Amino acid sequence: MAAGERWGPGGGRVFVFDRRLEQCDSAERALEVAGGSGYRDFRAAVCQAFGIASDGTFVITTTSRTVVSDLNFHQIVQDGVTLYLLQSVNQTLSLATRERIDFLPHYDTLVKSGMYEYYASEGQNPLPFALAELIDNSLSATAKNTEIRNIQIRLIFDESQGKPAVVVLDNGSGMTSKQLNNWAVYRLSKFTSRGTFDSDHAGYVRPAPVVRSLNSDISYFGVGGKQAVFFVGQSVRMISKPADSQDVHELLLSKEDFEKKEKNKESIYSGFIRNREPADSAHVTSDEEKFLHNLIFEEKHKKSFTAVVITGVEQAHVQYLKNYFTHWTRQLAHIYHYYIHGPKGNEHKTVKKEEGPPNNIDIEITMYEKGKVPRIVNLREMQDDMQTLYIRTAADSFEFKALVDGDGVVEGIIRYHPFLYYTETYPEDPCFPSKQKDDDDEDDDCYIVEKEARGKRPIFECFWNGRLIPYTSVNDFEWCAPPKKRALGPIECYNRISGALFTNDKFQVSTNKLTFMDLEMKLKDKDTLYTRIVNGQEQRVKIERDFALWLKQCHESFDKQIRFVGFKGIITRTDL
Amino acid sequence: MAAGERWGPGGGRVFVFDRRLEQCDSAERALEVAGGSGYRDFRAAVCQAFGIASDGTFVITTTSRTVVSDLNFHQIVQDGVTLYLLQSVNQTLSLATRERIDFLPHYDTLVKSGMYEYYASEGQNPLPFALAELIDNSLSATAKNTEIRNIQIRLIFDESQGKPAVVVLDNGSGMTSKQLNNWAVYRLSKFTSRGTFDSDHAGYVRPAPVVRSLNSDISYFGVGGKQAVFFVGQSVRMISKPADSQDVHELLLSKEDFEKKEKNKESIYSGFIRNREPADSAHVTSDEEKFLHNLIFEEKHKKSFTAVVITGVEQAHVQYLKNYFTHWTRQLAHIYHYYIHGPKGNEHKTVKKEEGPPNNIDIEITMYEKGKVPRIVNLREMQDDMQTLYIRTAADSFEFKALVDGDGVVEGIIRYHPFLYYTETYPEDPCFPSKQKDDDDEDDDCYIVEKEARGKRPIFECFWNGRLIPYTSVNDFEWCAPPKKRALGPIECYNRISGALFTNDKFQVSTNKLTFMDLEMKLKDKDTLYTRIVNGQEQRVKIERDFALWLKQCHESFDKQIRFVGFKGIITRTDL
Ligand SMILES: Nc1ncnc2c1ncn2[C@@H]1O[C@H](COP(=O)(O)OP(=O)(O)OP(=O)(O)O)[C@@H](O)[C@H]1O
Ligand SMILES: Nc1ncnc2c1ncn2[C@@H]1O[C@H](COP(=O)(O)OP(=O)(O)OP(=O)(O)O)[C@@H](O)[C@H]1O
Ligand SMILES: [Mg+2]
Ligand SMILES: [Mg+2]
Repeated sequence: MAAGERWGPGGGRVFVFDRRLEQCDSAERALEVAGGSGYRDFRAAVCQAFGIASDGTFVITTTSRTVVSDLNFHQIVQDGVTLYLLQSVNQTLSLATRERIDFLPHYDTLVKSGMYEYYASEGQNPLPFALAELIDNSLSATAKNTEIRNIQIRLIFDESQGKPAVVVLDNGSGMTSKQLNNWAVYRLSKFTSRGTFDSDHAGYVRPAPVVRSLNSDISYFGVGGKQAVFFVGQSVRMISKPADSQDVHELLLSKEDFEKKEKNKESIYSGFIRNREPADSAHVTSDEEKFLHNLIFEEKHKKSFTAVVITGVEQAHVQYLKNYFTHWTRQLAHIYHYYIHGPKGNEHKTVKKEEGPPNNIDIEITMYEKGKVPRIVNLREMQDDMQTLYIRTAADSFEFKALVDGDGVVEGIIRYHPFLYYTETYPEDPCFPSKQKDDDDEDDDCYIVEKEARGKRPIFECFWNGRLIPYTSVNDFEWCAPPKKRALGPIECYNRISGALFTNDKFQVSTNKLTFMDLEMKLKDKDTLYTRIVNGQEQRVKIERDFALWLKQCHESFDKQIRFVGFKGIITRTDL
Repeated sequence: MAAGERWGPGGGRVFVFDRRLEQCDSAERALEVAGGSGYRDFRAAVCQAFGIASDGTFVITTTSRTVVSDLNFHQIVQDGVTLYLLQSVNQTLSLATRERIDFLPHYDTLVKSGMYEYYASEGQNPLPFALAELIDNSLSATAKNTEIRNIQIRLIFDESQGKPAVVVLDNGSGMTSKQLNNWAVYRLSKFTSRGTFDSDHAGYVRPAPVVRSLNSDISYFGVGGKQAVFFVGQSVRMISKPADSQDVHELLLSKEDFEKKEKNKESIYSGFIRNREPADSAHVTSDEEKFLHNLIFEEKHKKSFTAVVITGVEQAHVQYLKNYFTHWTRQLAHIYHYYIHGPKGNEHKTVKKEEGPPNNIDIEITMYEKGKVPRIVNLREMQDDMQTLYIRTAADSFEFKALVDGDGVVEGIIRYHPFLYYTETYPEDPCFPSKQKDDDDEDDDCYIVEKEARGKRPIFECFWNGRLIPYTSVNDFEWCAPPKKRALGPIECYNRISGALFTNDKFQVSTNKLTFMDLEMKLKDKDTLYTRIVNGQEQRVKIERDFALWLKQCHESFDKQIRFVGFKGIITRTDL
């Protein structure tokens, strides 16, 4: 039993070092203390154990040299504690002692894990990124689905159904009770999981390379789900059923429960999984979770599923989710663009009803409010996420590959957004208008024409295992930046390009999946090798020149009106 | 005992739910399994417990419905496991079951906590920031010192003394064994610590406000020390003695040890503190830690101290610490500038030997290499950290206060770096030359004169409880940004100012103390109130106008030559 933990009224075991004399026994003795005994009994027991006359001069102290007495006995002499038997309280330790300690992580490890990570979010609300962690998990879980991969976020903001709740539901592999147990283990990842007798967690096998790394293998650190749920709310109910199981497994973790366990000195990281028949909601009795009955009733016809039910949702989150619905759903559509639309992204489809394997991921968001028609959005239907805008306005694209550090491969694409009939087609970010005039510009009598289209935005968005890492972007590479000397075409063409980079997990990201660690550094290493890709084939060409040629061609073929840049004549400034 | 943990050869306890019939007992029964027993014995015990004839038809399964048999018995039937008694393996559960689980955080919680946090470091080596966490702790620990506060970083890179080690040593309060125990508890912070019988951790009392928030109260999350040591190395030995103690307390944590405990299914978060006489190094036997004998011998005459001894230091870190010694020590001098030099910073002292209370913090760094004279630096002696450069080149300063959100107070200072005899005095950052010409600039026929002095750098560096938060900076405020209309003086004066902001922990920072959460957002809130401070007194003036006047005065009094900005005439551009 752990020190200080689970100390019941039934007594416990303490460890006593006899350090009265120089030549004393080096090891401690374990003494059993009967429940309900007091200082007198304990002192007598010590005397007996060490063969001391009961009127001998000695003190019993803590390792911090607090003398044990009638007054503090019950506070001090708890299960697992280490004590000294000394001649006097201040004598030195002739021989070292070994004091047993426990240092279980505080439950804030789980409950606060997301707080000061997600928040470090550059002024944006990080809530969409917390939801993304749960979508990541659902993508991983549905990777092997043969039927459509269905991921639903349900926002239950209908008071008649209970308190506000955020539910993430998928028809993926589900979890056995052992896997559900492992879910709750902070920092247990697919790399550290040991095989168990049910071989729930066999050794991890890296997925084979696929185009744009859309491998659905987005789990990495063993923290995402926990960080996310406790960022969103105070309590989570994980409900899951694997395909070949009769039983549904359910685990409830809550801040309140952790607090209670700490107060009662119970084991912090122990709990119960409820195993039950599908559709059995007998255990749900509180009106605050009324909606659970329906959710659980749906289990009836499901082969396998996982539902993450978050309650205790902060009011500010509820407000944000309601008021910025379009904004954050667009952000999610952006993050998962290539999962939703396939490796080519959201191209204009000529045949609209084209069916087929690439589009088998449905990510659906539904918001329920009392007295209102539920608001539903399927991320695939969103047509104004940034990647869609980039793809739709592109006239041509330039694909390439970067070979980094021996075995890291980055796929890349650059798109050309032509100038058409008086205006640039480079899409504006609807949320962060970056072309917005600088305050300076008004008075500025020098107007930097060539910066106009892209503005100050970096060229590349970066995707890791197919999903966007939102806070990392790459400005440019040497070969696609405006050349220092003379360009083949007009310089402003360099500001009509957008791009995307695709890596697998050979490149590392931070635990909150908001930033890459060193993607840019590695890409800009002088040994990094860039190759152009045409129709899937590597070209043996000089990328810098080939890119310049491509850009010139784009300009000549697609720019529909050439703008006069405004040659102002040469101004000779006299030295100051 | 926890499930699966500490399973010895001595047997254990398993929980069996009888779910053969609809109307069965809802509760599980606990069965003691004797050590060394096999499947036969166990089956018999189950039959007896539930009153089943030994030839009855039933199966015993796991909660994942794996049938227990001769073959898998020892793998499955471990201490704490929950089992079912069923009629057939696939029957449904008429009644739910409760399965006991444990979900102790994986030890990577400690060992990898810093890895993907510090790394998210924008291309800089994060090692100095890891060392800063340890200096933070030493600053907190020495806050109440009456004698000089001595903090030493010793880099022991001398093979004759053992393997590479990083030692951080202070003469602060030290830790009792209970406090040392608490040190190891991840996420246990001064806010969550409970009082103990030794009242080592009484309720936290926020320090009284002091100028520039130099309150030495830099502990916050209960993670910094652990993140830092395991970022630097693989093993840490915490050695500490509080002032009123005879004993030194010592705790060793190492990755290797965690791995061993996991392998042996021992309690992961249990260990031993060694309590011993000062200067007793009998327990150090390995040559790899030879240097410890000297370090421990020094304990002899110390009232109180804490030593953090990190070994298993990654070779790349050793190289960096050696090769970039000047660079990272300068960074530390920058981070702790106001602790080292006092609230006014590193001003030119006319009386050099001026003694007094403000400069009572010694942060000393020593690097030992074999056959070389040790390299020693006292951070106070560094004269080229950025804050020193700002202070030394400033001709005048403008102080202000921001009142945020009711009770948050931010102190601020703006310094003027005049133009003197043909050159700007605005200091260049020796590490990150940001005035470096943009690639564009070369060809650019419009030269933005007024950006010259500060370049693109933001105005304000930001300090939290007196120490720099290195990745957060604030560009400007409306009232100190170049005005959109006409300025009182030349516009380039707005680029001759640098500044610093000082907050206390009313403003939150991320767990790695690299960024503020929302400082800028709060400061730019329309309700934030700015007041000018003159000689410590708040002025009832309009800050925008007062600042403009101050700037104009600076220009007139300190700029030693006025530059011709180059009026080019009005160019009328015809519409395209
Ligand atoms: N929706 C789900 N369906 C099935 N299994 C899941 C689901 N969500 C989580 N899991 C399981 O729980 C584990 C822990 O999830 P969590 O998100 O906390 O960490 P992770 O995904 O392993 O790593 P990361 O920190 O990168 O997210 C997953 O590895 C997976 O095995
Ligand atoms: N040098 C030291 N001297 C005395 N006590 C220390 C020292 N270093 C750490 N401690 C104790 O150990 C605790 C844990 O330190 P740690 O740095 O891990 O977390 P913290 O300082 O509490 O919070 P933060 O995450 O903000 O650093 C401290 O709160 C302090 O009580
Ligand atoms: Mg995850
Ligand atoms: Mg700390």
